[in-house]
Amino acid sequence: MSDLKTAALEYHAQPRPGKLSVELTKPTATARDLSLAYSPGVAAPVREIARDPELAYQYTGKGNLVAVISDGTAILGLGNLGPLASKPVMEGKGVLFKRFAGIDVFDIEVDSESPQAFIDTVKRISITFGGINLEDIKAPECFEIERALIEQCDIPVFHDDQHGTAIVTAAGMLNALEIAGKTIEQAKIVCLGAGAAAISCMKLLVSMGAKVENIYMIDRKGVIHAGRDDLNQYKAVFATETPKRTLSDALDGADVFVGLSGPDLLSPEDLLRMGPSPIVFACSNPDPEIKPELAHATRDDVIMATGRSDYPNQVNNVLGFPFIFRGALDVRATRINEEMKIAAANALRELAKLPVPKEVCEAYGGIELSFGREYIIPKPMDARLITLISDAVAKAAIESGVATLPYPKHYPLQSVDDVFKG
Amino acid sequence: MSDLKTAALEYHAQPRPGKLSVELTKPTATARDLSLAYSPGVAAPVREIARDPELAYQYTGKGNLVAVISDGTAILGLGNLGPLASKPVMEGKGVLFKRFAGIDVFDIEVDSESPQAFIDTVKRISITFGGINLEDIKAPECFEIERALIEQCDIPVFHDDQHGTAIVTAAGMLNALEIAGKTIEQAKIVCLGAGAAAISCMKLLVSMGAKVENIYMIDRKGVIHAGRDDLNQYKAVFATETPKRTLSDALDGADVFVGLSGPDLLSPEDLLRMGPSPIVFACSNPDPEIKPELAHATRDDVIMATGRSDYPNQVNNVLGFPFIFRGALDVRATRINEEMKIAAANALRELAKLPVPKEVCEAYGGIELSFGREYIIPKPMDARLITLISDAVAKAAIESGVATLPYPKHYPLQSVDDVFKG
Repeated sequence: MSDLKTAALEYHAQPRPGKLSVELTKPTATARDLSLAYSPGVAAPVREIARDPELAYQYTGKGNLVAVISDGTAILGLGNLGPLASKPVMEGKGVLFKRFAGIDVFDIEVDSESPQAFIDTVKRISITFGGINLEDIKAPECFEIERALIEQCDIPVFHDDQHGTAIVTAAGMLNALEIAGKTIEQAKIVCLGAGAAAISCMKLLVSMGAKVENIYMIDRKGVIHAGRDDLNQYKAVFATETPKRTLSDALDGADVFVGLSGPDLLSPEDLLRMGPSPIVFACSNPDPEIKPELAHATRDDVIMATGRSDYPNQVNNVLGFPFIFRGALDVRATRINEEMKIAAANALRELAKLPVPKEVCEAYGGIELSFGREYIIPKPMDARLITLISDAVAKAAIESGVATLPYPKHYPLQSVDDVFKG
Repeated sequence: MSDLKTAALEYHAQPRPGKLSVELTKPTATARDLSLAYSPGVAAPVREIARDPELAYQYTGKGNLVAVISDGTAILGLGNLGPLASKPVMEGKGVLFKRFAGIDVFDIEVDSESPQAFIDTVKRISITFGGINLEDIKAPECFEIERALIEQCDIPVFHDDQHGTAIVTAAGMLNALEIAGKTIEQAKIVCLGAGAAAISCMKLLVSMGAKVENIYMIDRKGVIHAGRDDLNQYKAVFATETPKRTLSDALDGADVFVGLSGPDLLSPEDLLRMGPSPIVFACSNPDPEIKPELAHATRDDVIMATGRSDYPNQVNNVLGFPFIFRGALDVRATRINEEMKIAAANALRELAKLPVPKEVCEAYGGIELSFGREYIIPKPMDARLITLISDAVAKAAIESGVATLPYPKHYPLQSVDDVFKG
């Protein structure tokens, strides 16, 4: 970890601070160029946009510009370190948006005294952008913040910690169930953790066929059940009538374990309680709820995913958000709805079943990648993501009635080409 | 104008909308690169900044990042067209910041219901940036907004419509007075217009030696004088005991006319009332208070400046803001104070007196440029601006105690080099 730390600090500081710059895309060599870029020529697009606000998409960068916004209350797994400390993460998100989907990002760190102040602030600056990606905001405030902003803004607002994780988890989960010969409708699911990502994961799994009565969600106080009176409205959705109280109770015969909690919380004994071909998504980062080596040593029928890049089946949000926003922006969707999230998950799922091009295998050290226990989730370096996922999201936006432009003809977009060439 | 309009709309729309993009400055080719740019490596700079907020300048783009922020209430000379319509102007400002001083800009358009809401919003997002350039906000709200933000933010906040115009005007004015054989201390000054730029211009001239009792400011109701009871606190500063009531009264024997008002408001008759070698800054754009041809036909001793690039002596804000922010950012000044503004004006003034390199003359059609009636203000394409103006501003910040870093050793900066090479 110390080597990584040194390398990461060097990477961020040298040869100049940060990871992004703002660059000119039009000529500025002559006085004539500048008279078009600024006064007096700029008056023309100003007047056009004043006449028809939609023309902002034609004359400004709005349509390809996403704000990555945080208040720094839940940075990575590090907790509430404040908005300024979140800046490297938000800039990093901008790097991924650009690298994978050609989307321009302004990172905005908000020092707000309350969720309402945060909402008001983001609402007021929202016309600047074509979309808003909320990031690293703690639960339960993040739910109310996202709900209010979706309602008040006419551009997509998406809290990636919730939905990005949910979409990639759902894709991998459905593939794992298929390999285990099980169905989402019948799967008994145990979710350790009841934060933003956990709640969103379980909600998306329900949207995709899981039954609430088959889900046991577990917070610091144990299984969330109907007899508890300490549940907020978001957890209460998953409160079932059950005598189960502990993780061990819940895991008895379970098909699926989803961990969004902390290191080493799933013991070998508990893993042994699960049903045949158990599916274990141990997503705590950097240390999973159970180490893959230990899980495989305990049972040889386990299908395992983690949040780490050095094991097979990484649940990595970068498989989702760049392409979800790419698809949403390309058809100028007014929101990212459940249909679009499901479309993204299904497209990811299908991509994992396609033969993997040689160059993707090579990008991961030449390992053989083909659909199976060790490959249920696509890899970030797979260039087909931009085509398949964005495409599926754009189509779902159109079909569900939230798109305001017709289906775009060409992927990858020119800006994306630029990124991949560069 | 129609050709310019067509060209400007084409420039803004093709080959893709807008004028700026966000680009990667660090490698992102491999999975290892991405693990440094984002999770898990990014945790290292997050922890460092949480420990010491100053390190945000070392590990993020904050230190070279300026927000250009508007509410769209006073766009160019077009009036209150709302925040969205201001976006091409704000992006254009970003183009100029980058092109001339290598500064990254996020344009932020704020849809705010009140000046207080605007202040709160900008304050909450201000930690994202190294500086804030306010733009196209109407008077008198702009004064209160700027004052509050300067007080509440620990980074420079600068309303360019006020101070940028003032600084360039002051530089040209002092040179014009020198050529006319007059002094700022004795000059009788008439200012037609009493908006943000006018008030800021007169305040800076006073800071540089002009006497309030020698200034006649004129608003829609005539000369601002002590007998009026309709003046806001900003205009009231310039209310003098005087029997003069009209522009013609005020111009009688005046040395200087500054127009920040509207087209053709200075008549040849009024120009004839002025004293010997009258100085006329007719800055209304695109149509000045008096056309230079008419002014010169009326009197051959007039020294003239306008806001237009197609006449000599253009009062162009781009001579100021990029370099003022460059100097302020380079020594991490906590504000842009009066000393820094005066230093910028004096440096601009001195630059106009230096021999002009051949390539600058060539950039302006091969005209001969040397200090005199037709050349009292430097030209934007003069590459010495970045050295001389930024340098003077940085030194003034240090001497006046608002700098937090020592004097930077090298101009132009690497990022600026990149711009000029590109």
